[in-house]
Amino acid sequence: MSSKTNLSQRARRAGGKPIANVLMARTMAQPDLVSLAAAFVDHQSLPIEPTRQALEAVWSQPDRALAAMQYGTTIGHPPLRQTVLEQMLEADGRTAGELSLSVDQVVITTGSTQLLYLVADSLLDPGDIVICGVPSYFVVLGMLGNLGARVIGVEMDADGLIPEALQDELTRLEKAGLLDRVKLVYIVSYYDNPSGITISAERRPKLVEIAQRWSRGSTIHLIEDVAYRELRYWGEDIPSIRSFDPDGRTVSVAGSFSKSFSPGIRGGWGILAPELVEPVLSQKGNLDFGSPSFNQHLMTAVLEKGIFEAHLEKIRETYRQKIETLLEAADEQLAPIGRIEWVRPTGGLYVWLRLPEGIDTGLSGPLFDRAIAEGVLYVPGEYCYPSEGCPIARNMVRLSFGMPSREGIRRGVESLARAIRGVI
Amino acid sequence: MSSKTNLSQRARRAGGKPIANVLMARTMAQPDLVSLAAAFVDHQSLPIEPTRQALEAVWSQPDRALAAMQYGTTIGHPPLRQTVLEQMLEADGRTAGELSLSVDQVVITTGSTQLLYLVADSLLDPGDIVICGVPSYFVVLGMLGNLGARVIGVEMDADGLIPEALQDELTRLEKAGLLDRVKLVYIVSYYDNPSGITISAERRPKLVEIAQRWSRGSTIHLIEDVAYRELRYWGEDIPSIRSFDPDGRTVSVAGSFSKSFSPGIRGGWGILAPELVEPVLSQKGNLDFGSPSFNQHLMTAVLEKGIFEAHLEKIRETYRQKIETLLEAADEQLAPIGRIEWVRPTGGLYVWLRLPEGIDTGLSGPLFDRAIAEGVLYVPGEYCYPSEGCPIARNMVRLSFGMPSREGIRRGVESLARAIRGVI
Repeated sequence: MSSKTNLSQRARRAGGKPIANVLMARTMAQPDLVSLAAAFVDHQSLPIEPTRQALEAVWSQPDRALAAMQYGTTIGHPPLRQTVLEQMLEADGRTAGELSLSVDQVVITTGSTQLLYLVADSLLDPGDIVICGVPSYFVVLGMLGNLGARVIGVEMDADGLIPEALQDELTRLEKAGLLDRVKLVYIVSYYDNPSGITISAERRPKLVEIAQRWSRGSTIHLIEDVAYRELRYWGEDIPSIRSFDPDGRTVSVAGSFSKSFSPGIRGGWGILAPELVEPVLSQKGNLDFGSPSFNQHLMTAVLEKGIFEAHLEKIRETYRQKIETLLEAADEQLAPIGRIEWVRPTGGLYVWLRLPEGIDTGLSGPLFDRAIAEGVLYVPGEYCYPSEGCPIARNMVRLSFGMPSREGIRRGVESLARAIRGVI
Repeated sequence: MSSKTNLSQRARRAGGKPIANVLMARTMAQPDLVSLAAAFVDHQSLPIEPTRQALEAVWSQPDRALAAMQYGTTIGHPPLRQTVLEQMLEADGRTAGELSLSVDQVVITTGSTQLLYLVADSLLDPGDIVICGVPSYFVVLGMLGNLGARVIGVEMDADGLIPEALQDELTRLEKAGLLDRVKLVYIVSYYDNPSGITISAERRPKLVEIAQRWSRGSTIHLIEDVAYRELRYWGEDIPSIRSFDPDGRTVSVAGSFSKSFSPGIRGGWGILAPELVEPVLSQKGNLDFGSPSFNQHLMTAVLEKGIFEAHLEKIRETYRQKIETLLEAADEQLAPIGRIEWVRPTGGLYVWLRLPEGIDTGLSGPLFDRAIAEGVLYVPGEYCYPSEGCPIARNMVRLSFGMPSREGIRRGVESLARAIRGVI
């Protein structure tokens, strides 16, 4: 038989293997490798006892236990949606009325990735435009590329996406007659992946105002990804970008319990602009009818029993120690090399390094294999750049400190320092 | 602010609310209504104790418990995939070698719906063609329409999809120059939703042979949905359609633990043709990275402890009693009315009724509201017809017996009989 499968355009655009697989394929002969690449969470602190405790609450009420085992609705379990809404309002110090918010805008998904996909799929035709900061989260860049979107990167600094850079890009697009193709601005607003940067409080209302002002033909939706908001190790929380959008027509929020509780349960959620609710639900209906009831009932019990807060305190302390270890090791090992820079994040799971100009950190450069030989795996920064806008910087590295032990982190940074010295 | 959201073409095609919502919206004032419409499973027999028992096995091994709480892989938990493969081979009485099967072709999804979506999305561009039997599962019809596919229905009889009808349709499409747009044939091969029909053993190899013979330009994939295979109440199991495709390049199988164990856990799986594995995984990576590890570890424990078989025996008995009740009630209440026909399914969750010609069962016909007034909700058959091919029969009704009690089923059928008499 000689016939061949004729894939859809979307499937053909996808091409290639996920970056994680590409990276892992290079590490086969290195069992002692420290991975500062994988975005896994700390393994030893995963909430086994808290989950058992929450499940006991589910089992103790027969109606609840039965509902957890049955089909639910596509939008998700009402008490979980209500709690998500209340948590967000409490964190922002606002009322539902002040933010024109109702529980009808809260959707439960399988991780925040699914929410981002559903929003993107509801808005983007091939050739439509998404604007994001540079660098950006490579999984979302891949997904947007798969949908055929043009992704344009604009500059960030230590306070996050630069409002003037966003304006300049929108001006340029308007002049090119492309403003009505701009559908989305995507922002990780707390402890960004990969940069670790949090957008400053001053910039938040400006970004909303810009998205609104340029929504001339059609609405430019601003998607605020708050997946890391709870992983705050120092300093005060600041209000979400959504809190500066009183009518809520511009900003939609994507959140997750994967980082703050357990990625194995994969509870994601969205607080959507009213116009996005129906298309997102319609698409989710096609995809899976709704995320598993069991996980939703479990997360509801986790949140109502105070289990969540207690666990969060614990993992915050774990990660605080890990990032301290990483930053100390970087000060000791990397700073002496010279011309290496990094922002010191106050939360999240990533540290973004700028190596000396001319060091190519990519798979085809000299550093990557050398680093593996020295015993450490990292994510080459080049994956975090969209294909348009700010040019790709080849000398960047993303380090993740979620999974390895403090000892592993120290060893990993030492290995990286040796590798860098070897290619300078 | 006056801007409006400009949705994607795909989102605009979706339009409208899910059928379940449309039906429920008509039932507000009727709290005593018996729903013979919802495709929920029996509520009282949901596996609470079996699930607790399986979870104890997960908790009892710390490594396993931790892995259940962590990220997994996109393709799914290896032991679960291995078990799915072995179950299928055992049911078919074949070896992996005989069917060119390896565990690398087994993918875990969130319900079989997600698997069907991923396959469809990997293959279909707008205007591409899917062939299915008539009637067909309305959720899949909706999803295919959302992807912009043309869905063409071909005739079924009591032995399932008629091979000659499939050939005739392919001949017609070839003459029209459209053969290379035919990407998929979709078949629920056991206790079809909505017809209750199982494709006969004789027809199974013929359908594979036809799909292969007409795969001239590009492969015509046959998707075999086995979601109801385990819900067998009488008679012997028969081999899957996949078992008649030794090289496995034509038939991909979609299965689920939602009906056979718990829809709240939503474990789905696919056994894919080799050419579909990479595109499906790539798309799943964009969608959600992988289904929740927690649910996969839980289902693995359910399957390895013999918990699954014991529970299945129990629910088979429950449904056997329910379908007997439904068929008895139909004999007593509907047969005397005359000119009402139905196939007597030996498994599954549905009975498909043909009412006298001229009775419009749809939302705009006289029967639907009358049935609600009498106390019963059903799914109008018209939703189960694709827009092309066999014309829509307006006098069909899908009855589901999974959720209501036997007493409810009896009352529901009595109500339906009164409503039919009222409109004849």
